[in-house]
Amino acid sequence: MTNSDTEQHRRERELTERVTASFDGCDNPRLRQLMQSLVQHLHAFIREVRLTEQEWQSAIDFLTAVGHITDDRRQEFILLSDVLGASMQTVTVNNEAHGSATEATVFGPFFVDDAPEVPIGGDIAGGAAGEPCWVEGTVTDTDGTPIPGARIEVWEADDDGYYDVQYDDDRVAGRAHLYADADGRYAFWGLRPTPYPIPHDGPVGKMLDAVGRSPMRASHLHFMVSAEGHRTLVTHIFVRGDELLDADTVFGVRDSLIKDFVPQPAGTRTPDGRDLATSPWSRVHFDIRLAPSAAADGDGERDRDDMIDAI
Amino acid sequence: MTNSDTEQHRRERELTERVTASFDGCDNPRLRQLMQSLVQHLHAFIREVRLTEQEWQSAIDFLTAVGHITDDRRQEFILLSDVLGASMQTVTVNNEAHGSATEATVFGPFFVDDAPEVPIGGDIAGGAAGEPCWVEGTVTDTDGTPIPGARIEVWEADDDGYYDVQYDDDRVAGRAHLYADADGRYAFWGLRPTPYPIPHDGPVGKMLDAVGRSPMRASHLHFMVSAEGHRTLVTHIFVRGDELLDADTVFGVRDSLIKDFVPQPAGTRTPDGRDLATSPWSRVHFDIRLAPSAAADGDGERDRDDMIDAI
Repeated sequence: MTNSDTEQHRRERELTERVTASFDGCDNPRLRQLMQSLVQHLHAFIREVRLTEQEWQSAIDFLTAVGHITDDRRQEFILLSDVLGASMQTVTVNNEAHGSATEATVFGPFFVDDAPEVPIGGDIAGGAAGEPCWVEGTVTDTDGTPIPGARIEVWEADDDGYYDVQYDDDRVAGRAHLYADADGRYAFWGLRPTPYPIPHDGPVGKMLDAVGRSPMRASHLHFMVSAEGHRTLVTHIFVRGDELLDADTVFGVRDSLIKDFVPQPAGTRTPDGRDLATSPWSRVHFDIRLAPSAAADGDGERDRDDMIDAI
Repeated sequence: MTNSDTEQHRRERELTERVTASFDGCDNPRLRQLMQSLVQHLHAFIREVRLTEQEWQSAIDFLTAVGHITDDRRQEFILLSDVLGASMQTVTVNNEAHGSATEATVFGPFFVDDAPEVPIGGDIAGGAAGEPCWVEGTVTDTDGTPIPGARIEVWEADDDGYYDVQYDDDRVAGRAHLYADADGRYAFWGLRPTPYPIPHDGPVGKMLDAVGRSPMRASHLHFMVSAEGHRTLVTHIFVRGDELLDADTVFGVRDSLIKDFVPQPAGTRTPDGRDLATSPWSRVHFDIRLAPSAAADGDGERDRDDMIDAI
C-alpha cells in the first residue's frame, strides 16, 4: 500500500466514523443501533465497489422510479426487497428454527385482511380459474397436540398467474379463512398452484432483465395460521416437481415446504362427494405445527395482528 | 454457540449465498459486481441487527414516503443519501487526493445548468438578499500554472436560506458562470454565505428529528470548475468561524475548504469601486487547483458534461 493509498483509506474511514458518530445522540438505543449499522454497511459497500458518481446517480434514479410506480395497489419497494432476498433474510432472522415447527417464508404483497370465511371443506376459489385441489391437514403444536379452532388464512393466484387484487373489478377470489375443527383438522378446495411472474413491468422488472434473472415465482399456496399461545406462522406450500423450485425469484422455497400435489384423473371420487366427473383435480396434505408464543417460552411474540400490522 | 445457533447461522449464510449466486448469470461484469456486493452488505446488515418484521415494514414505509415526496423540484433520495454520508463517501472514493489539487465535496441538489454568464467582477446575486461578498482567486493546475479561460460555475442560497429554485416564481438569483482571464484570475460579487437547513418537512427531516440530528448545513458557496485537460472540480468553500463546521448535516466540510471571509465595514473601499458606503461587506480569496484529467494521467475522466449528466 502506498502512502497515497493509506491517506485515501484514512479519509474514507474517518468519514464513516464521522457519520456514525452523528447518531450518537439518538436517545432511542434500538434506532441508534439500526442507523449506525446501516451507515457502516452502506459505506462499506460504496468503498468496496468504488462506486462511481454516475452509478450513484443511477441508483438515485432507480429508487426514484421505484417510488413513483408504488401506490396503494403496487408496492415496488417490497418487490425490490423480495428479489434481493432481503425479505426472506428478514423472515429467516425472525423465525429461528423451533423444534419441529413448520418453517416460515415470505408474506408477499397480496394478502388481504378481510377475506371471506369458508366452512371446513369449503371452496376458496370464488370463481377463479384453475384445476381444483383438495387441501387438508392438521394444526398441532410442536408436541403434536392438536390446536382446535386455529385460524387458517389461505390465498393464491389464479391459473393466469394473477391474484384477485390485481384485477380492476373488485373481485374476491382465491382467498378465504377457515378454522380447524375440534381435532385440529382442516380441509378446503382451492386451486392447484401454477407458476407466475412477479409484476415485472416496472423498475424491478427492468433490473431483473438487466442481470439476466427471471421474474418467475415457483408455484405456491399461501398460508397464515394463528392460535392463542402460539407463534403466528406465515408460509407457503410448494409443488414437488415444479421446475422453478430452485429458481424462485424471491428465494422463498424451503425443502420442508415442498409437498406432493397428487394428480387425480377426472372422475376420481372426491373426499366430500363433489362431482368432478369431467375435471382432473389434485390433492395435497399439509400438517402445520405452530411454535409456542412468547408467553410460553420467551421467544419474540408474533401474533396475527402484529403480522398484519407489519405488512 | 449451540447446535441451534450453528444451524440458524447456516440457514442465513446459505440464503445470502443463494441470492448472490442468482446474479452469476449477469453478463455485465460491473453490474454483477455491484449487485453481488450490495446483496452481501444488505444481508450482513439484516443479520447483524436481527431486523424485525416490523422494522422491515417501517423501512418499506419510509422509502415509500421518500419516493412519494420526490418530484422534479424535490429530490428526497439525494437528501437521504446526503444525510447518511453516502453522497460524501461517493465523492471521496471518486476524488482520491491528487497532489495539491483542490478537494471536492458534495454537489447538492440545487445546481442549474443554464445559469447566466457574468463578466469577471460581475454580480451573481441577481437581487437575492444578503451581505455582498467579493470572491477572487486564480485557477491553476497542480503545478501552479494558470489555466486561462477555465469555466467557473457558482451558486448559493440567499440570506433566508433558500436557493432561487426553491421559490415558485422562476427567479434566477445567486447563481452564474464566468471564465478565468488570461492569467487564470477570476473575481465576482456574491453573497456572504449563511447557514440553512436542508428541506426537512419530509421523511428525511422526520428521520433526523427522530435521531436527534439537526438539518442545518454549514454556510457555504458552491463551485464547479472545468477546463480542457483537467478533472472537473465540484466543491464548496466554507466560512471560517461558522459554528456548524463540525456539524454539517451532509458531512461536506473539508479543512482545506474553510476560508477567511474577511468582514469589511460599511464604507471600506471596494476592489472595483462599487459604492457600498452604507453596507458592510466581506471578501474571500480562493485559489483553485485542478488535477489533470484522464487523458493526462489515466485517472477516471470527469468532464463537466459527465458531472452534469451524473446529477
